[in-house]
Amino acid sequence: MEVGRSLFEREIRKRELRACAEFPVRFAEHEGVLVPAGRIEHATPKRVAVLFSGGPAAGGHNVLVGLKQVLSQLVGVREGFKGLLAGDFFEIQNLDEIKNTGGFDYLGTSRVKIKERVEETLALCKKNHIDALVIIGGDDSATNAALLAPHLQVISVPKTMDGDLQYGKLLPIPFGFDTATKVYAELVGNILQDTKSSLKYWHFVKLMGRTASHVTLEVALQTKPTIAIIGEEQHRLTDIIETIANAVVERSKAGKNYGVVLVPEGLLEFIPEMNQLIGEIDSMLGRHQGTLAELGPDERKQFITINLEQRGLFNFLPSYIQEMLLADRDAHGNLTVSQVETERLLSDLVAKRVQELAPGTKFNVNHHFFGYEGRCGAPSAFDAMLGYNLGLVAGSLILDGRTGYLASLTSLNEGGKAVAIPLSKMMHEEEREGEKEQVIEKALVKLDSAAYKFFVSRQDVWMRTDRFASPGPRQLWGPATNQLPISVALNQGYSSLNF
Amino acid sequence: MEVGRSLFEREIRKRELRACAEFPVRFAEHEGVLVPAGRIEHATPKRVAVLFSGGPAAGGHNVLVGLKQVLSQLVGVREGFKGLLAGDFFEIQNLDEIKNTGGFDYLGTSRVKIKERVEETLALCKKNHIDALVIIGGDDSATNAALLAPHLQVISVPKTMDGDLQYGKLLPIPFGFDTATKVYAELVGNILQDTKSSLKYWHFVKLMGRTASHVTLEVALQTKPTIAIIGEEQHRLTDIIETIANAVVERSKAGKNYGVVLVPEGLLEFIPEMNQLIGEIDSMLGRHQGTLAELGPDERKQFITINLEQRGLFNFLPSYIQEMLLADRDAHGNLTVSQVETERLLSDLVAKRVQELAPGTKFNVNHHFFGYEGRCGAPSAFDAMLGYNLGLVAGSLILDGRTGYLASLTSLNEGGKAVAIPLSKMMHEEEREGEKEQVIEKALVKLDSAAYKFFVSRQDVWMRTDRFASPGPRQLWGPATNQLPISVALNQGYSSLNF
Repeated sequence: MEVGRSLFEREIRKRELRACAEFPVRFAEHEGVLVPAGRIEHATPKRVAVLFSGGPAAGGHNVLVGLKQVLSQLVGVREGFKGLLAGDFFEIQNLDEIKNTGGFDYLGTSRVKIKERVEETLALCKKNHIDALVIIGGDDSATNAALLAPHLQVISVPKTMDGDLQYGKLLPIPFGFDTATKVYAELVGNILQDTKSSLKYWHFVKLMGRTASHVTLEVALQTKPTIAIIGEEQHRLTDIIETIANAVVERSKAGKNYGVVLVPEGLLEFIPEMNQLIGEIDSMLGRHQGTLAELGPDERKQFITINLEQRGLFNFLPSYIQEMLLADRDAHGNLTVSQVETERLLSDLVAKRVQELAPGTKFNVNHHFFGYEGRCGAPSAFDAMLGYNLGLVAGSLILDGRTGYLASLTSLNEGGKAVAIPLSKMMHEEEREGEKEQVIEKALVKLDSAAYKFFVSRQDVWMRTDRFASPGPRQLWGPATNQLPISVALNQGYSSLNF
Repeated sequence: MEVGRSLFEREIRKRELRACAEFPVRFAEHEGVLVPAGRIEHATPKRVAVLFSGGPAAGGHNVLVGLKQVLSQLVGVREGFKGLLAGDFFEIQNLDEIKNTGGFDYLGTSRVKIKERVEETLALCKKNHIDALVIIGGDDSATNAALLAPHLQVISVPKTMDGDLQYGKLLPIPFGFDTATKVYAELVGNILQDTKSSLKYWHFVKLMGRTASHVTLEVALQTKPTIAIIGEEQHRLTDIIETIANAVVERSKAGKNYGVVLVPEGLLEFIPEMNQLIGEIDSMLGRHQGTLAELGPDERKQFITINLEQRGLFNFLPSYIQEMLLADRDAHGNLTVSQVETERLLSDLVAKRVQELAPGTKFNVNHHFFGYEGRCGAPSAFDAMLGYNLGLVAGSLILDGRTGYLASLTSLNEGGKAVAIPLSKMMHEEEREGEKEQVIEKALVKLDSAAYKFFVSRQDVWMRTDRFASPGPRQLWGPATNQLPISVALNQGYSSLNF
């Protein structure tokens, strides 16, 4: 029973992966990017290191499988840049065991950054005879890749379950987003089915995804919930509460004392007055650290809040949120947004408002936060295909002698086309911790995008009716296997939801 | 995009269901139960009503599909006994839309019981020309069926996601358990994969399932987590804390500052001293209602706890658990167990103990409660098959003129064999709210069962190593489709895990 772990894992290892071209391919420049220009027949063997950086995402193991297929010598780095700086390398041999499996556990990962340690990183690579480096990670990791690229051959492979690393037609979506959203969408669909069956609960569901609301938008398109909040709309907190409370009252009048509200993890950062409040408190905490350390909880609260411009908002919030806002910050001086129970904050404020609008309205609430259970799922058929092909593209770029490129796959509805984007093209200037820096832009949900506009056109119907969908568990075999993320298909203008 | 809801739902409706015999069948007595004895060729048409009772479970819609196939006139009752008592009936026509879908939303359900309203129920059935009634529900509903059976033709169909309605070889498992445990097992497997990838979290996961720990045992067998607590072991709270804390320290010494602990929803009820404490508080709350209503929170706490035998335990508990224990009870005078955050209670006590055992040990914790997301999932292939066949068996029993039977399916590993158990055989005497009553027994995890013994033989290895399994999303097509619940296969002595 314990051989090969589970039946599912034994079987997925046998699933064939389809390459979108005959790899390894050579590349040629075309309109500012690299596109395939034939097969590489003979390549100089290189010793190539590969590492994961940041949170896990489904499909990462298949990137390794793709790389190993085109590169003769592949060296694994344990625990990301942390392992690289510690010289923790090993030779990668057979990858049959991890083919199509979820997680980053084959190499491990870390959030260590190398911005201030570029020299050291280069020296360590040289010492370990590394000819080239493949960095599998999100926007921060791509920025790291760009820093190293002038000095060492480096290729970046885009991963993120958050979906916040996108670049128009050239980078429709990194690997990991599809699996996470399909895991969450199944659960949300099941809960919607439960509300319609047991007829007595409102569920407030917070979805992982850091700042941007891509995950929430995609899950909304897949499940058609009663309400979904998109952070990028930048509504005021009171307006959000009003919208939900009105829906609760309206549905209750129609005999529907149930529903599902989707809440993006990063919502609070987008609420202008909330943002201002957090900023004001951050600044007070930073400026008066010494004084505050000597105060008791009540004095501390008074000291911080007495001169806040957003004092009204602060007093409007439930006490557990006040406490959280006043708590000490992480090492970077930031509030750990994922720890704010936004789903509970909203439901508490809505409960109060509902009783003002229509006293006696039934409003029984459950809360959920879906996060970790989506990052490490077995890759969907889409992510399995995407990860594998990104590995093949990245390996080909290495053999073709390219550096400072991000491997990508376009035309996903037509079997996929390899492309490589110069990291320099993706960089832009941003202010981070008070200093201007060249970084890869974090992609937010665009309010003029096709996916968002479709959502807006339907949300009223979804709120009034129970026209939800239950997308079910993602399938690796059979007729429901080859589904694209809906938001990606809409934004790329594909005519089909299948790949 | 909104036609047929999701691609998955459109496709599962087309999945064929296999009947385990040529239905409708006649029955004959054999060793105290009914077994098939040939096909019914001509049956008197009957007007048969059907209702769901209690929480939703996956496969219920297929019971209706099975019933409809053998019965000419099927009448749906909306919202369980609540709808029956309100005369809320409708003629069931085509069921293609709900075939293989999750939830109880086609009829709705309720928790209304009819113990004191038998006469009224019978009169309503008569008034609506109901010849027979099919009750789809758990142990309480089967007890209700037994009450009605002498006066009206009644057949009971066993459902429960909790798995606590079992009857040896005759009733291996009701529908709903397999889907719920497969949903939870996927999520737990994903989280295990995440711990091994990000290497820094302990996750405490509470699993729905009411009193019994069947769900937790099944999910443990599927995922092989670091630790799983089985309520029926009846350990003392301090022993449970000691076990987990020792594991945390031992694994930390081996460089593993991560793990997953499974906690059954009903755990607290099984901890003898906790049970005693809850009982003592319940009794104080019941006896001194009037006095307590006039006291402030602190006085109330002192009044209730001053004479408790388990005062030491009470003081050992974190304040939020103390508050919960002192809160007012539900209409039946019981504590709502599912609302106690057992997963947080355990992790808080473990955190304290770990620092005593090995100061400085890293112990970062996340909490989860998986419940509603498992009850209404699309049925697994197993539950789809089971629900459909139970419907065929129940319909056949009606046509064969039987009353007071529970429809069941045995020999699940050999395609399934129909059987009907007299409800009278399953009844036993129990004390409920101070009175002796004849009820269907709630099945707990037996400590001498094959499934539990297998778990015990492996749990030490799972704790020390990372030999977890990621069972993946349940599959409706392909080679990983036909999996039985592991605990059922072990307890029934099947030689294969497939059906």
